[in-house]
Amino acid sequence: MTKIVIVGGVAGGASAAARARRLSETADIIVLERGEHVSFANCGLPYHIGGDIRQREALLLQTPQSFKRRFNVEVRTFHEVIAIDRAARSVTVRVWPNGEEYQERYDKLLLSPGAAPVLPPIPGLDSHGVYSLRNMPDMDRIMAALEQDKPAHATVVGGGFIGLEMVEALHQRGIKVTLLELAPQVMTPVDPEMANMLHQTLVNHGVELRLNTGLSAVVPQAGVPAAGDGRRLELHLSTETTLATDMVILAIGVKPEVRLANAAGLELGLAGGIKVDAAMRTSDPDIYAVGDAVETPEFVTGKPGLMPLAGPANRQGRLAADHMLGREVSYTRTQGTAICKVFDLAVASTGLNEKRIQSLGLAYEKIYVHPASHASYYPGAHPVSLKLLFDPQNGRILGAQAVGKDGVDKRIDVLAVAMRAGLSVLQLEDLELTYAPPFGSARDVVNQAGMVAANVIKGDERICHAEELLALGENQWLLDVRNPGELKSIGQIPGAVNIPLDELRQRLDEIPKDKEILVTCQVGLRGHVACRLLRNAGFNARNLSGGYKTFEMVTARY
Amino acid sequence: MTKIVIVGGVAGGASAAARARRLSETADIIVLERGEHVSFANCGLPYHIGGDIRQREALLLQTPQSFKRRFNVEVRTFHEVIAIDRAARSVTVRVWPNGEEYQERYDKLLLSPGAAPVLPPIPGLDSHGVYSLRNMPDMDRIMAALEQDKPAHATVVGGGFIGLEMVEALHQRGIKVTLLELAPQVMTPVDPEMANMLHQTLVNHGVELRLNTGLSAVVPQAGVPAAGDGRRLELHLSTETTLATDMVILAIGVKPEVRLANAAGLELGLAGGIKVDAAMRTSDPDIYAVGDAVETPEFVTGKPGLMPLAGPANRQGRLAADHMLGREVSYTRTQGTAICKVFDLAVASTGLNEKRIQSLGLAYEKIYVHPASHASYYPGAHPVSLKLLFDPQNGRILGAQAVGKDGVDKRIDVLAVAMRAGLSVLQLEDLELTYAPPFGSARDVVNQAGMVAANVIKGDERICHAEELLALGENQWLLDVRNPGELKSIGQIPGAVNIPLDELRQRLDEIPKDKEILVTCQVGLRGHVACRLLRNAGFNARNLSGGYKTFEMVTARY
Repeated sequence: MTKIVIVGGVAGGASAAARARRLSETADIIVLERGEHVSFANCGLPYHIGGDIRQREALLLQTPQSFKRRFNVEVRTFHEVIAIDRAARSVTVRVWPNGEEYQERYDKLLLSPGAAPVLPPIPGLDSHGVYSLRNMPDMDRIMAALEQDKPAHATVVGGGFIGLEMVEALHQRGIKVTLLELAPQVMTPVDPEMANMLHQTLVNHGVELRLNTGLSAVVPQAGVPAAGDGRRLELHLSTETTLATDMVILAIGVKPEVRLANAAGLELGLAGGIKVDAAMRTSDPDIYAVGDAVETPEFVTGKPGLMPLAGPANRQGRLAADHMLGREVSYTRTQGTAICKVFDLAVASTGLNEKRIQSLGLAYEKIYVHPASHASYYPGAHPVSLKLLFDPQNGRILGAQAVGKDGVDKRIDVLAVAMRAGLSVLQLEDLELTYAPPFGSARDVVNQAGMVAANVIKGDERICHAEELLALGENQWLLDVRNPGELKSIGQIPGAVNIPLDELRQRLDEIPKDKEILVTCQVGLRGHVACRLLRNAGFNARNLSGGYKTFEMVTARY
Repeated sequence: MTKIVIVGGVAGGASAAARARRLSETADIIVLERGEHVSFANCGLPYHIGGDIRQREALLLQTPQSFKRRFNVEVRTFHEVIAIDRAARSVTVRVWPNGEEYQERYDKLLLSPGAAPVLPPIPGLDSHGVYSLRNMPDMDRIMAALEQDKPAHATVVGGGFIGLEMVEALHQRGIKVTLLELAPQVMTPVDPEMANMLHQTLVNHGVELRLNTGLSAVVPQAGVPAAGDGRRLELHLSTETTLATDMVILAIGVKPEVRLANAAGLELGLAGGIKVDAAMRTSDPDIYAVGDAVETPEFVTGKPGLMPLAGPANRQGRLAADHMLGREVSYTRTQGTAICKVFDLAVASTGLNEKRIQSLGLAYEKIYVHPASHASYYPGAHPVSLKLLFDPQNGRILGAQAVGKDGVDKRIDVLAVAMRAGLSVLQLEDLELTYAPPFGSARDVVNQAGMVAANVIKGDERICHAEELLALGENQWLLDVRNPGELKSIGQIPGAVNIPLDELRQRLDEIPKDKEILVTCQVGLRGHVACRLLRNAGFNARNLSGGYKTFEMVTARY
């Protein structure tokens, strides 16, 4: 009878427990969870704060009782594992609130401790009104503060997933919000120009966005009444300014919980997570680790990386249970596919972003498209702004990012599958995707991205990027083939000459033969037609990928 | 200077013309279209009739003038090609309305004539009030009839894509609708149990659904005033009954337009379409054909099939243009990915359905899942009912079908890509798809389907299907592990013994050791846990795939 002890009862730990029981009716399975809850919906916490999820109970997916009844798994909450004795194959458990300790023996141990919010050494973080959000009690504290302190203004520190979700949640509660982000962009999994669309929607919704700005200190203001006119906290910022606020949500990031593993002498990896093999085993073959605490090979490069995501955590938990009970398994690499709702927009990505590709020194090309989420003549269509990164030689998909109001999840899912299956961008135009006017287009967003990328690889389209247009060379000439009304109403790139596409064939004599023609339109489609026309007529032309819309995304400053 | 003549200016023809110009500025490109319009949104016609698409002009994607201006393509509408002289490489063109004829020479000819509505030899189809819907004039006639005749009741004949869309369009216009379908189900690309969900929503929306019912004759009723109380048409049905109606929409199906190709001696294929090679060439190397008129190899079997779909038509047009202008191309097989909106539901499929697999005699297994479209604790989640068909030996994906209110398109897209890329069902659980509560689940619908299929292939789950439960053997015993309240409120399978899953472990002595236990729950998840428990405890158990929900879909009769 195998005795399996699982440390941490959320996501990976809960998956492993249920899977282990399905494989073995006789295994002894114990889950030790230091918190009050197991298997709660941690991804749902901001949505309960914001009011989208009305019932707190909806977030409690399982209880110790339900786990016992259904899976005959012993779940002990308020049980914190504080040490591992690998030689004796036992863990030391401290039981809260009384602090009693006992030893629990194991045959197989699974560590699923998750990741903890990063809390830098900033003075004043222990002040009343400063919160982070990791679990149900954190959420309850924030909810209570909203009720009791009635903050008029809140400051969210950090523009990642949780930070952005909290900005929206607080905004929905009628609270004025400032978002501080130390980096020049929110949502670092995507590149800056994609993040700029999020910056715009944040500002449009009345959020005060302060990029390149960190928090240096929190100073409680004495004598300010609980729900009075003055702000209760003064924030000192890295920009040498101050900000008065009533509530601070720290969402700077998370770091893997490796204390226990490290103390037990388990090997940590290069990225700072617990090192595991393809069976999710640590350096001790009887100890497994899964979820946000471990590092796994990144899909494209195979390099170890931290990917604190729910999907991989659940998969890993299942695999660890399989392996403990004698099955052969092999965890596949992690693509890091992720999505976040930011007000009316969704932002999603898979694979590597351009920043990371550049830091790795990989050869790459990128293209942008902005097609409608479904047939543009059917109501409710919105552009999907998609960036596709690929190997310019063989067309291997390196990564993809998308932002839009509708259909973003679907396109990144399709590209994540194509990437995982090893399809090249040359094969994307042939994908047969569902089409009827309410759902897509005969040439879907992904097909169009594939056609553009294929054109680039085959040399049918030579492209340029916004950065280049900001510093035109002597022998370059910028042509905008949109209609004059568009330039006027939408904007234009300085120095561009305007010849509408439909007049281009008749006005070729206005274009210098001895210069390289850089062509732009609104989204890159007319520019492509113009470039083909120009090149077939003997000109040397390149098209701005994604057109003026991408140019705006690249050059906007918030 | 290559002279390209294109017969038919919609979808494939229009794509080919635009592509040819992008490849060659000097080619002479002529599009001959017998109708009034080129490149119109034929998929949008029902939505304009129903009122979703307000502006008729929104359906006109291109005009001869816009084609000329942008692509220097000569589009001649009302020009019908009536004969091909292959030896002389010329076509005979009849110009409407005056009927003049002339010869047009070609270097390369592209046939893109599309498919025509099937009009069986039923008496009375030429009566006032009987319509089919293929193009803008058809739509205009129906719109005019709705205005002038103010029909109170309409009958749609045929429950395919256009038929279902027209049912909804007419319903939206406040017209009472009867749908006649000769087959026992609507939407024949999916299997009957999936179609039953559509039957239900049709009935729920007040549509009178008559399956297994054909139209035998249309008899105009003399003396009924234009907008009076009586019905203007009497329909004689195959069921020996009559039906009084004011308007008939014929949507029985479409057949490839092969008359011209056939008369020219071009080879037709086994499925009745124009036969083409992988470069979209007909049996005459200077004549290409694309779109609804051709047959292409079906993805799984390679057998030729008719796939009248917009996506493939566009792809084929592009490829034909490429090949005409000297490029190497190879059309990949057609999966037949398709989707249709039916009131609040979407129905989508890719690959082979079970009916077709059976007729081919292929070995297969099928599984059903009904997970929520996104995290069930986040508002707006609806079940996605997914059927996955696969090779039970190697896990090859043979086909997939889904029905639901939300997220159906995404799941079939993901499976269509996985199928095209050659992934097996064993790899679906590892797909990394976008997850945040508003968009999906940590284990997405497709991951869950993959896990169930993998369980089946690996022998971790032995399943049974509803058909088997309708004829239980002597040594079979049916166990329902739902809670008693569910059986009462939702329904149950006759003869089932109810032991809730959470009591099962304690009540094993109530279960016969000498019989095969067939287990059911609501959607198959608890049944899986119960089966694992039973098998680990020494019982011989199989789980009803998709649970009682699938049983209801299979056994419902409309």
